[in-house]
Amino acid sequence: MHRPIPRLATVAFALLTLLTPLAVRADEGMWTFDHPPLEAMQKAYGFTPSIEWRMHVMHSCVNFGGGSGAFVSADGLVLTNHHVALNQLQKMSSAEHDYQHDGFFARTHAEEMPCPDLELKVLQSMSDITADVQAAIDPKAPPVQQNVQRKAAIAKLQAAASKRTGLKMEPVTLYQGGEEWLYGYRTYKDVRLVCAPEEREAFFGGDLDNFSFPRHDLDFAFFRVYENGAPLHSTDFLAWSLSGPKANDLAIVVGHPGRTNRQRTVTQLEYERDVQRPLAIRLQEQRVDALHTFAKSGTEQARQASGLLRGLENNLKRERGFLELLRDPSYLAAYAARERTLRATVAADTKLAAYSDAWTHIDGVQALNRTLGRSRQLHEFGRVSRLADIATGIVRMTSEMAKPNEQRFREYQDSNLNTQRFQLLSPAPIHTDLEEMLLAQRFQTWADSLGTDDAFAKTSLNGADAKSAAHSLFVGTTLMDVNARKALLDGGPAAIAASKDPMIVWARAIDAPYRAERKRFEDEIESVETLEGARIARARFALSGHDLYPDATGTLRLSYGRNAGYAQLNSMVPWHTTFYGLFNRANGFDFQSPYDLPKRMRDAEKSIDLSTSLDFVNTCDIIGGNSGSPVIDRDGRYVGLVFDGNIQSFLWTFGYSDAQARCVNVDSRAILMVLRKVYDMQALADELTAAAK
Amino acid sequence: MHRPIPRLATVAFALLTLLTPLAVRADEGMWTFDHPPLEAMQKAYGFTPSIEWRMHVMHSCVNFGGGSGAFVSADGLVLTNHHVALNQLQKMSSAEHDYQHDGFFARTHAEEMPCPDLELKVLQSMSDITADVQAAIDPKAPPVQQNVQRKAAIAKLQAAASKRTGLKMEPVTLYQGGEEWLYGYRTYKDVRLVCAPEEREAFFGGDLDNFSFPRHDLDFAFFRVYENGAPLHSTDFLAWSLSGPKANDLAIVVGHPGRTNRQRTVTQLEYERDVQRPLAIRLQEQRVDALHTFAKSGTEQARQASGLLRGLENNLKRERGFLELLRDPSYLAAYAARERTLRATVAADTKLAAYSDAWTHIDGVQALNRTLGRSRQLHEFGRVSRLADIATGIVRMTSEMAKPNEQRFREYQDSNLNTQRFQLLSPAPIHTDLEEMLLAQRFQTWADSLGTDDAFAKTSLNGADAKSAAHSLFVGTTLMDVNARKALLDGGPAAIAASKDPMIVWARAIDAPYRAERKRFEDEIESVETLEGARIARARFALSGHDLYPDATGTLRLSYGRNAGYAQLNSMVPWHTTFYGLFNRANGFDFQSPYDLPKRMRDAEKSIDLSTSLDFVNTCDIIGGNSGSPVIDRDGRYVGLVFDGNIQSFLWTFGYSDAQARCVNVDSRAILMVLRKVYDMQALADELTAAAK
Repeated sequence: MHRPIPRLATVAFALLTLLTPLAVRADEGMWTFDHPPLEAMQKAYGFTPSIEWRMHVMHSCVNFGGGSGAFVSADGLVLTNHHVALNQLQKMSSAEHDYQHDGFFARTHAEEMPCPDLELKVLQSMSDITADVQAAIDPKAPPVQQNVQRKAAIAKLQAAASKRTGLKMEPVTLYQGGEEWLYGYRTYKDVRLVCAPEEREAFFGGDLDNFSFPRHDLDFAFFRVYENGAPLHSTDFLAWSLSGPKANDLAIVVGHPGRTNRQRTVTQLEYERDVQRPLAIRLQEQRVDALHTFAKSGTEQARQASGLLRGLENNLKRERGFLELLRDPSYLAAYAARERTLRATVAADTKLAAYSDAWTHIDGVQALNRTLGRSRQLHEFGRVSRLADIATGIVRMTSEMAKPNEQRFREYQDSNLNTQRFQLLSPAPIHTDLEEMLLAQRFQTWADSLGTDDAFAKTSLNGADAKSAAHSLFVGTTLMDVNARKALLDGGPAAIAASKDPMIVWARAIDAPYRAERKRFEDEIESVETLEGARIARARFALSGHDLYPDATGTLRLSYGRNAGYAQLNSMVPWHTTFYGLFNRANGFDFQSPYDLPKRMRDAEKSIDLSTSLDFVNTCDIIGGNSGSPVIDRDGRYVGLVFDGNIQSFLWTFGYSDAQARCVNVDSRAILMVLRKVYDMQALADELTAAAK
Repeated sequence: MHRPIPRLATVAFALLTLLTPLAVRADEGMWTFDHPPLEAMQKAYGFTPSIEWRMHVMHSCVNFGGGSGAFVSADGLVLTNHHVALNQLQKMSSAEHDYQHDGFFARTHAEEMPCPDLELKVLQSMSDITADVQAAIDPKAPPVQQNVQRKAAIAKLQAAASKRTGLKMEPVTLYQGGEEWLYGYRTYKDVRLVCAPEEREAFFGGDLDNFSFPRHDLDFAFFRVYENGAPLHSTDFLAWSLSGPKANDLAIVVGHPGRTNRQRTVTQLEYERDVQRPLAIRLQEQRVDALHTFAKSGTEQARQASGLLRGLENNLKRERGFLELLRDPSYLAAYAARERTLRATVAADTKLAAYSDAWTHIDGVQALNRTLGRSRQLHEFGRVSRLADIATGIVRMTSEMAKPNEQRFREYQDSNLNTQRFQLLSPAPIHTDLEEMLLAQRFQTWADSLGTDDAFAKTSLNGADAKSAAHSLFVGTTLMDVNARKALLDGGPAAIAASKDPMIVWARAIDAPYRAERKRFEDEIESVETLEGARIARARFALSGHDLYPDATGTLRLSYGRNAGYAQLNSMVPWHTTFYGLFNRANGFDFQSPYDLPKRMRDAEKSIDLSTSLDFVNTCDIIGGNSGSPVIDRDGRYVGLVFDGNIQSFLWTFGYSDAQARCVNVDSRAILMVLRKVYDMQALADELTAAAK
């Protein structure tokens, strides 16, 4: 079976008309909870989410760090996607127990399995600190200085708020710098796995069906949050809907969309098109190739590689889609036309004309970004080797902690130390053979792409070849042992300086080049993009008031729309699928992988109602990071679980259209039915239905 | 539910690479039975259809006149599509019995219902008369004269062959004039309806799903051929396959593809793009609008309009698709590049250089065609009013029969008189209110589009408004009575001249303008296109031997390919669907029309095996007219019934690609199962399985 080539040219044309400079379209927007589009929702759907409604939903939604979820019972039960849980499933699996492949089913609290390093966050408070931050900035200072002032002000406000509230405070920059906020979270670190179906069921159709519809996946996983050793008891959860979603019903999605580029400048998009996306694709393709080779060497190697491969293939499909859109000249032309209109409007307005040069300044730093940004991107290795990431993390954290709070890197400010320690001391297994291979590959890439004089390459290779260099780091390290990491962290700068652990020695050596590159980037690129982005935002606010939503930033957002099918090719795609469709597709491909239905489902066929709604689509505005978000009906009930967007939704990175783009969800009725009829999870099903409405 | 807009831009790009001047691609071609691509089939599929295999298949396949079919039992049972049977189903229905909507089920021979005017043809012989025709043409004579000589030679050879064989002989012009053939048919006029499912089942998904895949239709109908009052007994039938098709198996489709444009000149395609297709669309849209209005006036009116509407909507979807392809500049550029290459090759070849001006001559008549061809197309009214068609048919036939055979219009030469009489004397009901409305509409169009001085408009309107003019024809006519038509035909020119029947008076009046326009078209356009087309064909033969197939001409052809799914958008379309899929799609649209499964099927759900294969696709090269064709496996078994092409197959009008374009078929297993489990047609099922292999 050969791989289909995504063709996005057909969807890009839709953007030609949708990019209007200021107006927001029906169902458009990933809105912050401080100002959802109340009037538009009322007008379109006759529904206004009350303050109480919003607070309840906000407290019921869970941030998975790159994914989303929601509380669905009074006893701390959290529902998210199987693919959001995948990272933990992998870390909990071993050669003996492959929970990723086989699923996991705890039928009592005692059987629920603690996650090694999953921290969940629930948003409690949002404070607009824009005025305070602005007040701390001297607008006459050079940009570098302004950026330092800005960061110090944020750090100070953050520390004070943390102290005052006891919450984990995170700064959030919205509208390309136009607003600065502090979001306060409750965090939970005792999270246990309750239930996950087989990967083949959760991800039926595999990479082939990914980002498509009709879809037939049961992409769910249940966790439970514990506090003081007992399930978290709370009224902040979404009541289960037994009746599920209906065609054309209002649907509200609440989650943590990661990143959209709807308000970036054309030159920023060109940078993305020419440098950032192609490089990301190349680096991912390299890793995919290496992992496939690694997987061939044995069953256990295949298991270790499988989770990474799946994540990479998922990302690649998306990245290639984004790049295809960016390379479509008609798309970028439409985007540029919108920017020209906005710039002309600003220039013609005597009160705003001073902002006209903001775009020029941002455009001006893109030439440097094409070398500096590229080099920074190449030097990342967090997803290449966790152990290398832990080593550099320990080195950086200890030296940062020696500084005053507001002078530290943002990620090592007081509010984040707890989380950093939790990650650095994670007991999750590390597959050293695999990481060594990938790190060697990256060392080689530094030399190949940046030259042997590149500081990272020089320091890492140290005259040896890439394989030997990487091997020498893994062969003598003690960092596999969590206690060794703990001793280094607790020992502080002195312990780090004294360490002979080869990983730490290497991490120390690349610390200076890392800091130099980061400082240059922050001083010369970030400062300009943020300060000038803020000025553009101010001009936009002045033109259209506050009926705008910010680009996605991984923070809590509300989207809304309707459950609806769409026209595709010359036919119609229905708004939902059923279990008939699941069996049809498995039979259609003669049960060949990735359409090989697991035995549990095949055995259950006669006892389930095949007409049960399985997956459905709606027009809610989402993006990567929304995975695991609840779909909520107007009564606040849990009717669906977001797990994907169709391929046409790729354009939502750059603008909104409801012509074909859709958010793809699992129906609440499907989850409940399979818990009872396929997985024999009666207690879990009872827990969901106990508070059902 | 709003209508989807077909977007074909995505498929057109595929043509850029597929149009090579001479080579034929894997699985390409609608081959005549005298030279199927034996080597290519052997190479690709390890199968060579023997002479016996071919003769058996040829004698088993049935021409439905615009559709196809095949014998499937030793007792004259013929299987075709429900939509091929539709015209007869409509004619057999009445306000009391709506067989189109409700289906028809004869469980004994006695219950089988005679069709009013269905003539089936089975090909028995094929003779190449190219040399004889060429010999009769004086190449130095002007084109008009050559064309007259050519036609007279064909008519003479045809008459002689008819006399000699007793078969119905039909001339066939292949390769744009490059070859002239006589095809000899056995004909059958006692054809009875045996079984047709409900339209909602045969055409599940309606116009929305038409030309798409995955598909879930049971588009079949059974007829039985009678001879001398008893079922035709013969060994020339295709044995039913109980095991059905398999993925990647060789599939052979035999049927009567209507028309392709793969070897026309660029200027001919431009004529099609600018004049012929847009006009066809406009005329059809007019009728659709009128029929919708008519259908609203009552239940019986709705029934009368429904069959016409369905045919028109089907055609419109296809015509619009073709036009979109033709208007895609990249497509026509590729087509033009191919023509340039061929012309350059011919010009550079000293033996062929003389043919170089053939294209110039064809190009030269297109300017005239843009007025004359358009006017001819506007003046057609066969599908507007059957009664008007009968009246003009009677007038023309009587006057043509007074001439020597070879001087008559082709359709009134001896070999065709039997068929003409059968059609003119058909007892099928005529819905006069409906026809009067449509004819009035056409009269008005003549005046609007060609001016009130247009001979057809002037003669028909005769000073009155279009409605009154049409009304006056229908109000006093006796032609509803078959005996009145018979009396006129038998009375000959004298009876026609004496008739005061208003329809006949009108038909007499437009006879002269009709003949004048037709003569001018044949002398000035057809003669050049055929004679020069023949010269291009000779050049092509000289360059590539005879490894070519001619454009489709509605005559028997063999296509071959494999049963295979394809990549679409970013996912895969499976090679087949099952009954699970049927129920999934009905549920997916909440059983709303056109996804409202008939009661019989819903009731049968528990007793049928939902995993039974329903519809499937293969790469066989087909086009409109192939509807009802059998899909035959290498053992000559009947494994499927062609009923559609997906939207990507629209490009097969202009060239072949197997990237996404597919032929869409009903699985033999599905038909057998529903006969037994849904429609209680046990005797029919037994008849199919009696000779199953």
